[in-house]
Amino acid sequence: MRLARVGAPGAETPVLLDGEGTAWDLSGLTTDIDGPFLASGGPGRAAAALAEGRLRPLDLTGLRFGAPVARPGKVVCVGLNYTDHAAETGAEPPAEPVVFMKASNTVVGPDDEVLVPRGSTKTDYEVELAVVIGATARYLESPADAGRVIAGYAIADDVSEREFQLERGGQWDKGKSCETFNPLGPWLVTADEVGDPQNLAMRLYVNDELRQDGHTKNMIFDVRHVVWYLSQFMVLDPGDLINTGTPAGVALGAGNDFPYLRAGDVVRVEIERLGAQQHTIGQAG
Amino acid sequence: MRLARVGAPGAETPVLLDGEGTAWDLSGLTTDIDGPFLASGGPGRAAAALAEGRLRPLDLTGLRFGAPVARPGKVVCVGLNYTDHAAETGAEPPAEPVVFMKASNTVVGPDDEVLVPRGSTKTDYEVELAVVIGATARYLESPADAGRVIAGYAIADDVSEREFQLERGGQWDKGKSCETFNPLGPWLVTADEVGDPQNLAMRLYVNDELRQDGHTKNMIFDVRHVVWYLSQFMVLDPGDLINTGTPAGVALGAGNDFPYLRAGDVVRVEIERLGAQQHTIGQAG
Repeated sequence: MRLARVGAPGAETPVLLDGEGTAWDLSGLTTDIDGPFLASGGPGRAAAALAEGRLRPLDLTGLRFGAPVARPGKVVCVGLNYTDHAAETGAEPPAEPVVFMKASNTVVGPDDEVLVPRGSTKTDYEVELAVVIGATARYLESPADAGRVIAGYAIADDVSEREFQLERGGQWDKGKSCETFNPLGPWLVTADEVGDPQNLAMRLYVNDELRQDGHTKNMIFDVRHVVWYLSQFMVLDPGDLINTGTPAGVALGAGNDFPYLRAGDVVRVEIERLGAQQHTIGQAG
Repeated sequence: MRLARVGAPGAETPVLLDGEGTAWDLSGLTTDIDGPFLASGGPGRAAAALAEGRLRPLDLTGLRFGAPVARPGKVVCVGLNYTDHAAETGAEPPAEPVVFMKASNTVVGPDDEVLVPRGSTKTDYEVELAVVIGATARYLESPADAGRVIAGYAIADDVSEREFQLERGGQWDKGKSCETFNPLGPWLVTADEVGDPQNLAMRLYVNDELRQDGHTKNMIFDVRHVVWYLSQFMVLDPGDLINTGTPAGVALGAGNDFPYLRAGDVVRVEIERLGAQQHTIGQAG
């Protein structure tokens, strides 16, 4: 099942998208696609309501897509989690997941404008498979136990300011939390519909130039390992988001001479089964 | 003015505490002490309601104190921000603020049990002056401009697992986000009542032994500088929390032989004008 939120920022309508792409209004069923909805079996109720003819179609013409889940309680990120990306940054593959966090108010719609921060010359892109948590995860027993807490997946662009991240003292978070730095969506695709999350091609283009051409099979720590691992260090709540790392091809990478993002650039991001997002780069005023 | 939230976890009642320590029920005025309440002039409305005799007293006997603000959108932390603490960790005083983040579901009541994580041998304490944001802060023009976005202050214990933070690869956040790792309160004291935030003595005791004996005058980057600085890298929202760093005396510090925390320890934390919190250490099951 594909879930989405459409409409003006802060006033999105939750919808279900069926196999033909028709959108069905879920607002009679839930006020939002959020942690409580996911944790209480909301997707199952939505499917039942559709099957029973209890939903009304919604014309998507001209409607903005918001992020497919309401603002998460937290956005946890895994760094250097693809063999090819670790190599391009000159880093050794990590012995265990590298964890950092992003402010959750960075999450915006998939096609919303992304702003280069004031004073930035190194704003970079990162296509990532985002995991949406559907049940509380605390000290999961094993990676095999992680499947039951994963509601589904979405595309994220983990936008990053490399000077802020790496050259301004301290921790990476400083270059990860700027406004608009986490376009998400268009859809939350439920785990059953995605199938194997380690079998997804992913691509990112800037102005139609292919920059990242990766595949989730190249993750160093796979999705279930990451979710299990994180649950040993923090409690994951329904609605939380995990960005699982990016493949090679970012502007920071040593193996290419791709430029950093500038106002006017157009970034297109695709992950197999998860759709595509396209955002224009602007400049923070 | 002192604001607090009292009652069972997740079902706290917002109250105002007057100069005599009498609690006045604010639940007729607001459902919670949160970002929307703070951003919309809630404290002023509460003061007016008290002056006009429109509030009912609430007997605090036997009532738990919750964190004095609802779960923040984010918890941003400043590291190595006291001259004496930077020295004890062997670090050079930073040239600009070191920034990291904590999962916001770590925030618990001031006297709630704090859990040593599974597998932890280096759970540490950190008394900190916490800033509660009261208005959106985005690219503030100067530190002088920061005062208007500060709702008030509270005591935080920025509990930290040093092995997870420093010896498990990557970024500090891994040792900062364990469950119960941010006792907050007892009160949110409004900025006008606190006066100069750089003139507050702060102390932390473990089992009645004085471990940290600091003063906010020793901050390397003062409160207004920190808030201004953060607003250049992220948007601060009403209800967000900033932990502004800890003075010397943590177990990690090289200048002492204080042990790490163990189940059964009792931690007492005091900051001038902000009250005191006391939490017992337990073991995560």
